[in-house]
Amino acid sequence: MSSAGCLEEIIPGLRIVPVDPADLLAAQQHLDNLTKPRGSLGRLEELARRLYGMAGGRSPLVVSPAMMLTVAGDHGVAAQGVSPCPQIVTRQMVANFLQGGAGVNVLCRASGMEMRVVDAGCAGGPFAPHPHLIDLRLGDGTADMTQGPAMRRETALEALRRGATLARRLAEEGYACLGTGEMGIANTTPASALYCALLGLTPQEAVGPGAGAGPAMVAHKAEVVDRALRVNGLSPAQAEHNDPLHALSAVGGFEIGVMAGIMLGAASCRLPVLVDGFICSAAYVVAVRICPTLAHYAILSHASAEPAHAPALARLGTGRPLLQLDMRLGEGTGGAVAYGLLRCAAAVFNDMATFQSAQVSPEGSIL
Amino acid sequence: MSSAGCLEEIIPGLRIVPVDPADLLAAQQHLDNLTKPRGSLGRLEELARRLYGMAGGRSPLVVSPAMMLTVAGDHGVAAQGVSPCPQIVTRQMVANFLQGGAGVNVLCRASGMEMRVVDAGCAGGPFAPHPHLIDLRLGDGTADMTQGPAMRRETALEALRRGATLARRLAEEGYACLGTGEMGIANTTPASALYCALLGLTPQEAVGPGAGAGPAMVAHKAEVVDRALRVNGLSPAQAEHNDPLHALSAVGGFEIGVMAGIMLGAASCRLPVLVDGFICSAAYVVAVRICPTLAHYAILSHASAEPAHAPALARLGTGRPLLQLDMRLGEGTGGAVAYGLLRCAAAVFNDMATFQSAQVSPEGSIL
Repeated sequence: MSSAGCLEEIIPGLRIVPVDPADLLAAQQHLDNLTKPRGSLGRLEELARRLYGMAGGRSPLVVSPAMMLTVAGDHGVAAQGVSPCPQIVTRQMVANFLQGGAGVNVLCRASGMEMRVVDAGCAGGPFAPHPHLIDLRLGDGTADMTQGPAMRRETALEALRRGATLARRLAEEGYACLGTGEMGIANTTPASALYCALLGLTPQEAVGPGAGAGPAMVAHKAEVVDRALRVNGLSPAQAEHNDPLHALSAVGGFEIGVMAGIMLGAASCRLPVLVDGFICSAAYVVAVRICPTLAHYAILSHASAEPAHAPALARLGTGRPLLQLDMRLGEGTGGAVAYGLLRCAAAVFNDMATFQSAQVSPEGSIL
Repeated sequence: MSSAGCLEEIIPGLRIVPVDPADLLAAQQHLDNLTKPRGSLGRLEELARRLYGMAGGRSPLVVSPAMMLTVAGDHGVAAQGVSPCPQIVTRQMVANFLQGGAGVNVLCRASGMEMRVVDAGCAGGPFAPHPHLIDLRLGDGTADMTQGPAMRRETALEALRRGATLARRLAEEGYACLGTGEMGIANTTPASALYCALLGLTPQEAVGPGAGAGPAMVAHKAEVVDRALRVNGLSPAQAEHNDPLHALSAVGGFEIGVMAGIMLGAASCRLPVLVDGFICSAAYVVAVRICPTLAHYAILSHASAEPAHAPALARLGTGRPLLQLDMRLGEGTGGAVAYGLLRCAAAVFNDMATFQSAQVSPEGSIL
């Protein structure tokens, strides 16, 4: 599938403009004239450079207001006993998000992001309306991917479309940065399956404890992933040729599809989009395979403690995460923490004095 | 020298109370009852636990208002040609700090810290008074440590005393967290010498490019450090027996002594204190050798890109830095960025719902 083709299938006319390398150079020239040794702010400079490129060379850099979208969905594969938590916890956590008491809520408040909950398809029917809830339901949880595809191809496309449309609406409303996070009991299993299907990890390499599975359950997860891949005709050995939309529909999830759509939609509006941890990165893999230019706008926020995250990102090869804090909660918590670094990077770019304005001798002036 | 002995020498009655392990356990019990898989917030949980211990088991955790103290001083060893920058840059950067245009200024504003500049002894005499300048001058720059001690033992003690007194005054004024940072042309050289003298690194292991020295200047720095150690009778092979106060006076600096004092003073008031990068960590090594209990209150904010930082911290063995952002600017910039993580950790501890309050089933409930 060609990138343009699939983006067109999602929303006619959708396109992601590559960052202009000249803007990256211009940003670094500006950074090199600020009162510090060249390059001495390390990855904050990299971030500032990228943000300037994403903005098409406009300054000052603006990263607020910022919106974290925590997308929830349920998974038929939960019936295979791949999580220590009962499926009802997805709904309970959505209620917790709406009450403001979950990890992602408090971290968004601490770092200055707004937050909304997106119901992409939790089991048990729609939630009561709430000002912080966005209803993008695609069903009452996915089907069990060990028995056939998790959803139809048209449903996967609709998940991408709804996510992209939401992101584009938020961009129109003036949000300058989006974040994606997720909630869905059992969803490390489809995420692992996507890493196998699209990056070629083996099921044994791709699974891990998730929310707290013991060794026996982890081994069982690998077997479940292997079965789902076989049933759906997705061979890890063929990973580079597997169709991302087929992979998403066969072994993905509603929240994974909506997050992938949000990322593509944000990038189409030239907004930076924060990718959270293990599951969110699987959505990113789907989205970046649909349109590789997405990588110019995606910010990998943190290295998850889930063991397969590092090898998956290494195979993907679109950069290193910003934070290594041994986190593995999901919800968007890593993105919320990393958002603080975006604010720091923008502040450096926008507000630091130049050697000239501060009357400071540049380094090397006695060499 | 016994710890208590030297703390008494700094300020009679000064003492640092160890964190009670029972408080760390109680904090983890609280964290384990919040709506997330156990341990899934990784190092944010570690931070929250430590902050609770530092506070002596009081909650909610309070980390603001927070004050970054950027301490400036000049170094006689600059005459040996160990930095690409002329010494006047120390003064120019102090002026830049006071005008609000340096890296540490913008990062403190971005992360919610206040900031003051401390003149510990810049060359060229006192600065004009300024509401954000604190005058703790110990001289007009240190003596050249390749010719003899950088300062007298009594001066080193006075540096510690002034720093500790300042920290204790800020604690009385209600600051809940302090940060230390520095400015001083050539000060990677005394920092490297302290790592040799107190941790046993060789001069070749301990030096690096600093603000931008090339390979020839780096080799020269190693030779300068070696000479300073010999002249002052400090053998890296005897590192564990070398007296920290002697090391500070022989191959340290005014700003390094004042920062070490600030750390000890903050810890004596049970305040968390952020340790910045390469030079700040050298002050920390001096301070923690004076009183090992300081480690309970010190937060290593980031891994510096200066090559010797990682091996120095590994030898010290008091924990891993929070951030790995390839930064090497100093000033307190790493501490200012890491302060955002303290706010995140406190928010998690204080504000997240419990399983009971949110009516969420704890993990493992179907096992």
